[in-house]
Amino acid sequence: MINYPNGNKATLNYKNSNSKRHIYNAANRGMSFEREINISNDYYINNKIALITKRPTPINVVRVDYTKKCKIVDAYFEKPSTTDYNGVYKGYYLDFEAKSTKIKTSFPLNNITLNQIKHLENVIYHHGIAFFLIEFAALNEVYYLDASYVIDHYKNSDRRSIPINDVRKFGHLIKQGYLPRYNYLEIVDQYIKRDSNI
Amino acid sequence: MINYPNGNKATLNYKNSNSKRHIYNAANRGMSFEREINISNDYYINNKIALITKRPTPINVVRVDYTKKCKIVDAYFEKPSTTDYNGVYKGYYLDFEAKSTKIKTSFPLNNITLNQIKHLENVIYHHGIAFFLIEFAALNEVYYLDASYVIDHYKNSDRRSIPINDVRKFGHLIKQGYLPRYNYLEIVDQYIKRDSNI
Repeated sequence: MINYPNGNKATLNYKNSNSKRHIYNAANRGMSFEREINISNDYYINNKIALITKRPTPINVVRVDYTKKCKIVDAYFEKPSTTDYNGVYKGYYLDFEAKSTKIKTSFPLNNITLNQIKHLENVIYHHGIAFFLIEFAALNEVYYLDASYVIDHYKNSDRRSIPINDVRKFGHLIKQGYLPRYNYLEIVDQYIKRDSNI
Repeated sequence: MINYPNGNKATLNYKNSNSKRHIYNAANRGMSFEREINISNDYYINNKIALITKRPTPINVVRVDYTKKCKIVDAYFEKPSTTDYNGVYKGYYLDFEAKSTKIKTSFPLNNITLNQIKHLENVIYHHGIAFFLIEFAALNEVYYLDASYVIDHYKNSDRRSIPINDVRKFGHLIKQGYLPRYNYLEIVDQYIKRDSNI
């Protein structure tokens, strides 16, 4: 395992993802993908390339114990109504959702909420750059897929997944390396160049 | 109390802020100000004027009870390293922190972290629009104050607060109304007009 400088910890601090304590559930699935995106973003921030941050996981706090240093004793994870990441790059507003799948043949849409789709539509409407970062974990491939493509599929197709061949055709394979871990801004640059009115 | 359409609930759901259960602490201080900003943002979103959202309160989850529908049983509020709000308006990236004070004579900086100051410096560096919304609760006045002014004061002044006269001189009084509750984008427009290279 490479030791990245200034590596952000993932929000839920599941450090030992391969240890016995690792539990496969919705909360930590794809956590390693998230961590590597955070590492990429740290690189972008530290090198003054872009400022992109992860939105904290929305949590509905029910009860706080004020006798114990404001310890939260009753709370629940909320369904996200926005996306995982947003920020600013060359003056452009960026907004994206990161998804990891173990499936090799398609990108399933069942974990994307209608509110997230509406949110991404709004981003595009207000001239932001909206996209998905999709990890096919079993293939070790990460793709940039424009949000407009996913929105169109979500609304107009009966299929609840996008075949990997379409992801490859309409998306962009992200270059993986050491620094930055995922060079997704390289793809954003293509969109900025292609449409200066974006 | 006016019933706003599509009114967002504040993150921590302290609805009965005047009830006996109301506890004055750091978590819910200024919650009503936050709620009214959320209402303003809902108006902006629903009328397709801008897309500005509140970042969820960062919470460090220590323990989850998976036997009880993923109930969080041990967690703590984290110190924020970014700001409360960000989003996109006319293609511009907006990023701001909202603060409410009961003091009538100055805006105290003691609740602003160094990480937040660094974050706002980064926003400006990457050509975003960064500012503070400051409520003087006892005066019922809300001001827009450019982040660069606050950053300069934070770094170069011995005073840990900004006198209200300076807030009035270098900031902008926000028009309050029904819809939008706080018309702060009116001020953003002035900044966009003044400097198209922002």
